[in-house]
Amino acid sequence: GKTHKILLLPGDGIGPEVMAPVSALLSEMVSRKTIDLQVSEALIGGSAYDRTGHPLPADTVARALDSEAVLLAAVGGPKYDTLPYEHRPERALLGIREKLGAFANLRPAKLFPQLANASTLKPEVIRGLDLVVVRELTGGIYFGSPRGIVTEGGVRVGINTERYSEPEIERIARVAFNVARSRKKKVTSVDKANVLESSVLWREVVVRVAREFPDVTLEHMYVDNAAMQLVRNPGGFDVIVTGNIFGDILSDEASQLTGSIGMLASASVGGKTGLYEPIHGSAPDIAGKDIANPSAMFLSLAMLLDHSLGEPALARTLEKAVESVLEEGVRTRDIAEPGCTLVGCREMGERISRAF
Amino acid sequence: GKTHKILLLPGDGIGPEVMAPVSALLSEMVSRKTIDLQVSEALIGGSAYDRTGHPLPADTVARALDSEAVLLAAVGGPKYDTLPYEHRPERALLGIREKLGAFANLRPAKLFPQLANASTLKPEVIRGLDLVVVRELTGGIYFGSPRGIVTEGGVRVGINTERYSEPEIERIARVAFNVARSRKKKVTSVDKANVLESSVLWREVVVRVAREFPDVTLEHMYVDNAAMQLVRNPGGFDVIVTGNIFGDILSDEASQLTGSIGMLASASVGGKTGLYEPIHGSAPDIAGKDIANPSAMFLSLAMLLDHSLGEPALARTLEKAVESVLEEGVRTRDIAEPGCTLVGCREMGERISRAF
Ligand SMILES: CC(C)[C@H](C(=O)O)[C@@H](O)C(=O)O
Ligand SMILES: CC(C)[C@H](C(=O)O)[C@@H](O)C(=O)O
Repeated sequence: GKTHKILLLPGDGIGPEVMAPVSALLSEMVSRKTIDLQVSEALIGGSAYDRTGHPLPADTVARALDSEAVLLAAVGGPKYDTLPYEHRPERALLGIREKLGAFANLRPAKLFPQLANASTLKPEVIRGLDLVVVRELTGGIYFGSPRGIVTEGGVRVGINTERYSEPEIERIARVAFNVARSRKKKVTSVDKANVLESSVLWREVVVRVAREFPDVTLEHMYVDNAAMQLVRNPGGFDVIVTGNIFGDILSDEASQLTGSIGMLASASVGGKTGLYEPIHGSAPDIAGKDIANPSAMFLSLAMLLDHSLGEPALARTLEKAVESVLEEGVRTRDIAEPGCTLVGCREMGERISRAF
Repeated sequence: GKTHKILLLPGDGIGPEVMAPVSALLSEMVSRKTIDLQVSEALIGGSAYDRTGHPLPADTVARALDSEAVLLAAVGGPKYDTLPYEHRPERALLGIREKLGAFANLRPAKLFPQLANASTLKPEVIRGLDLVVVRELTGGIYFGSPRGIVTEGGVRVGINTERYSEPEIERIARVAFNVARSRKKKVTSVDKANVLESSVLWREVVVRVAREFPDVTLEHMYVDNAAMQLVRNPGGFDVIVTGNIFGDILSDEASQLTGSIGMLASASVGGKTGLYEPIHGSAPDIAGKDIANPSAMFLSLAMLLDHSLGEPALARTLEKAVESVLEEGVRTRDIAEPGCTLVGCREMGERISRAF
């Protein structure tokens, strides 16, 4: 087989800590010849800004584009919050998504039965919770223009533009229906078609694409109702497909239902190179203290193995390794409970690697 | 004192049913001279369209503008979903908000201790839940232009525009800080300032207005994080202030935390005439069956008495009447629980009126 090229972007805050054990596991996989990989690392976010004056150096973009997949930990921190807009770590995140053409963000919210108590929802409400938000990631109000702060008749006005074209909606809808095919075969398309024309087009195109997938059920839901139904009956969802800003909000809400966002991974696909990241942030308050949870980083690698490298068996084995450590009652602080074996980031990582 | 003029808009679905007992109570209040009122009724929504060809007849607007307050039940139904955009019941809702200049939508999410079990969240998470979402209601992406579906280079594109001017942000921020003054003195301003310039201006203006309220604490939160924190720790909020679309989503999510949206009312103020409505919809599936919950309609009247008619004592008495009926274990179907006395809409309404 050919050598797979993957790029690691540890980034800021807890990023380097949670990446370290994953990077170690990758080295071990290479030396054991589990998989033929060429792994390298590059800069992104605040730490890239500190070293190069730019949060997304051209070299990082070039090497990302030259890889089959990118594994990103997290970016951002209070130190960078006062930087001018174009130098903020978030720009790097939006930038790399766009450069990679990673228009489909898959964010599974799955309950680990071992962590059912961590949720603020009642156990009977979240039992078996397993949904995926398919969020459009390179369009919508995040990227639309005109945008900016302008002065009109002496009054300052802040402007952003939501824009979705038919081809953009078509391709994200197709991803969602394909994902649903490998799951419970139900797609909930979320929009605000009772108010927004962009949503009217969204709904029309999703309905048309649905005809290519007669085996998948399609329902439509307004975004305000979706935010309610996620709390009321999250088990009613299988695949949620929606635009960039609604997806940002709903996927975070959905993740929080599980009570353990330190366990959740995401994949951003659609271009040649896939981008994989935990959904948690850079958590500057706990950075460098060896208390972060590296599980989501390992599970992001599992998604990478599955979606970009075509190694579903290895992906499943890695997921099982994470679960077996939970099963033994080993926990980092964010998911600790009475009677557990409390460990730090490094040890949690070692245990997961050993179980692999 | 002078005669207060109020207008009732029963609307569609369960609207007329839940309005009926409130209307009866108002007549009783007038005949008992509890308050000097002139009450009339007008058409809105699908039923207005059926009778006049327009969901928001000019006569309704004129009479609303001529009233001190408008009490609206609900609009919409499947029958009207296929109508052209401008004839849809939702247009009437957006239209009347705009005509009345009701730019500040106050949506309290308060847990009735008698109904704590109705929530899908754990009791310890929602105990004492009492927050208010102050949503900007006549601006943002709901009203901004350009908007529509256009063809660009042979490709159809759906467009909407988020716009907020400094004066619009200033006035809604002031409402929020004033509301916080009568509560726990904390405002959480929700935006997406890490991505949207409209949010950057929002944040800047809110910070400036906050200086007029040194006794109120201000925090900022990104909208995705707010959607998470509402699930994780709703007790951490007092007043949430945000724009139209974020407010639409977050206020529905917040309401659902209580588990009993049949109990929640809202006020839309800022213009000469205030608009008061339950947050539940027209619930066409249960319309005409005498099973709807009229409580939120009564509580909307309580908000009207308080905010528009300057009768806080009457408002508190009405709120207590609703609570006392709950206390007796009397329930409509939506809030029923084992051992309760199950009643219909009419009887629930009569019991609340009797307790007043
Ligand atoms: C940090 C921010 C720009 C980003 C987004 O809004 O896309 C984040 O919230 C996410 O969901 O990955
Ligand atoms: C029906 C719809 C237009 C309306 C809105 O989005 O404002 C509703 O969801 C609400 O919150 O009152």
